Amino acid sequence: MPSSVLKPGATIGILGGGQLGRMLALAAAELGFRCHIYCPEGESPAFDVVAARTVASYDNQRALAAFAGSVDVITYEFENVPAETAAFLDEQARVLPNARALAASQDRLSEKRLMQELGIPVAPFAAIDRQGDLDVALARLGRPSILKTRRFGYDGKGQVAIREGDDAAAAFAAIAGKPAVLEGFVDFTREVSALVVRGRRGEVAVYDIAENAHRNHILATSTVPAAIRPETADEARAIAIRIAEALDYVGLLAVEMFVTESGGEERLLVNEIAPRVHNSGHWTQDGCLVSQFENHIRAIAGWPIGSTERHSDAVMINLIGFEADEWLPLAAEPGARLHLYGKSETRAGRKMGHVNRIYPKR
Amino acid sequence: MPSSVLKPGATIGILGGGQLGRMLALAAAELGFRCHIYCPEGESPAFDVVAARTVASYDNQRALAAFAGSVDVITYEFENVPAETAAFLDEQARVLPNARALAASQDRLSEKRLMQELGIPVAPFAAIDRQGDLDVALARLGRPSILKTRRFGYDGKGQVAIREGDDAAAAFAAIAGKPAVLEGFVDFTREVSALVVRGRRGEVAVYDIAENAHRNHILATSTVPAAIRPETADEARAIAIRIAEALDYVGLLAVEMFVTESGGEERLLVNEIAPRVHNSGHWTQDGCLVSQFENHIRAIAGWPIGSTERHSDAVMINLIGFEADEWLPLAAEPGARLHLYGKSETRAGRKMGHVNRIYPKR
Repeated sequence: MPSSVLKPGATIGILGGGQLGRMLALAAAELGFRCHIYCPEGESPAFDVVAARTVASYDNQRALAAFAGSVDVITYEFENVPAETAAFLDEQARVLPNARALAASQDRLSEKRLMQELGIPVAPFAAIDRQGDLDVALARLGRPSILKTRRFGYDGKGQVAIREGDDAAAAFAAIAGKPAVLEGFVDFTREVSALVVRGRRGEVAVYDIAENAHRNHILATSTVPAAIRPETADEARAIAIRIAEALDYVGLLAVEMFVTESGGEERLLVNEIAPRVHNSGHWTQDGCLVSQFENHIRAIAGWPIGSTERHSDAVMINLIGFEADEWLPLAAEPGARLHLYGKSETRAGRKMGHVNRIYPKR
Repeated sequence: MPSSVLKPGATIGILGGGQLGRMLALAAAELGFRCHIYCPEGESPAFDVVAARTVASYDNQRALAAFAGSVDVITYEFENVPAETAAFLDEQARVLPNARALAASQDRLSEKRLMQELGIPVAPFAAIDRQGDLDVALARLGRPSILKTRRFGYDGKGQVAIREGDDAAAAFAAIAGKPAVLEGFVDFTREVSALVVRGRRGEVAVYDIAENAHRNHILATSTVPAAIRPETADEARAIAIRIAEALDYVGLLAVEMFVTESGGEERLLVNEIAPRVHNSGHWTQDGCLVSQFENHIRAIAGWPIGSTERHSDAVMINLIGFEADEWLPLAAEPGARLHLYGKSETRAGRKMGHVNRIYPKR
């Protein structure tokens, strides 16, 4: 057995204690692994399902070193792990996915430049470091455009639309003048995502393409199969594999794309990538034999990748904020499986759980 | 909402820390519950996946009281919970399944008498309290017969076959002269099991009937659907429901049955019942949307019962002892899902994990 293969009983370290860390830990347990969650917040949902917990900040080197010494591999549930934290841990333990994937996804500009290098289409964009850049870029890309901070944006945070008549200076002030990217308007018909898993020996598999609908910039539903042409789905898979290979990626990678239509042709543009399990892959828990969570764990453990085949059609519905108060009727719905994250407090906009509705494959 | 319905975030107490407790805890976590495992052994597989643990003996009333005070409902993963333990806990918290189900399943004689009361066929049997009873019973039931202790038998332990020429006194000595039952020989063609789940409001659902194969008295495989006639499967479901209703049962109940054939007719005899999730129901994890584990948790939490519908055909293969050393090739098998229990030590005869092979429904 190659020495990089973790044996059952080994411990997987996970940075972050939210629902993704929790579902990773549950999947790891099914394979006989123990998990150790590292998270700054004492009341983290993932703590309830693991053998070991560390509550400490991401710059606490003593706690990080102890954590690294107690685990056999380290992964993370969110891409905004500080680069210094990842670099520090990387000296003492294997961190997967690798630092390159983290760096590429933490910065919208690096991400877009990577896509360009790979010949993968993205929305027209320009780097914005100062007000002057924005004026020039707006003249080129036109309106509406979207100004997005390069770093730490998620669920619509750190972005502002600039429409006809809007004041560009006000928009730049709205993101506090941070380094940013201006994206030209994309008249897309659908948003889809491809989830690719790549193992330590370079083997890859891709789940069926999901079609995503957002509400208030937060994912509302993912539907599989997506209502796109088979050639478009094939192209989406190929793009995801190309990115995973370019990054020498190990684990589950999510690639969000826009689908545009013109003259009866569908085209794909990559919107963003996430070097982790992803909300648009939650349907795999009940639509496939091996979920995205299990396949991420398999990959980082050096195990063979599990089948990404789909046994059912699926619609994943996020339960945001007080929508999760409907857990009792949701639990009674036939053909649906309810997943709740064990969060102690319900807050508006907080992801509290999801439901997978399952249908026989068409 | 009825007051007996547990809200997400509530804590489920589980007696026993083996693989069944572990898989119950994993299923409970998916519904947003916390779990507290009570188990005398410090190195218990279920401890690795829960928020709270008590290591104490089943007669430690102080520990039991603290446990009961910290949970919202109590269940168990094995039917040999001492009656005094269950009675003590029952005064301080709700214990489900109820004491009647525990009592009926702990004693082979009570179990068989219950079946007789319900008009459900069982193998011919006789109560054996002393050597003289055995001589009389052997004359009536003939040979071969099987002498089984009334209590604490499982996986072939506490039983001895009496064949032509065997010494009856030696057989009685082999079970240490304990109160026993002699069972007449049943020429069965198959062993099947029915898993019924019954909720707090009396609603019931039954999974499709599994066909079981044993090796060295330990379950080796369960195959679904069982190769029995549809009428026989219906009768097996009806029997399981009748038993659950008679016991006013809440939770998942397993009923093991023999199938005999004579003159082209199939008949069912109940072999034994288990008031808990059962090894012959592990296929439900990957063959159904809602597993036996989740449905047990739903039932004791007062939630609606989840669908027991099967989306795939399935074969569950137990990994006994060193069979689990093959985890790497097993993990690579397409169409199969590997489940490992995180047991630190592999021992001959120990259940280490299982594999569910999944096929499109025929």
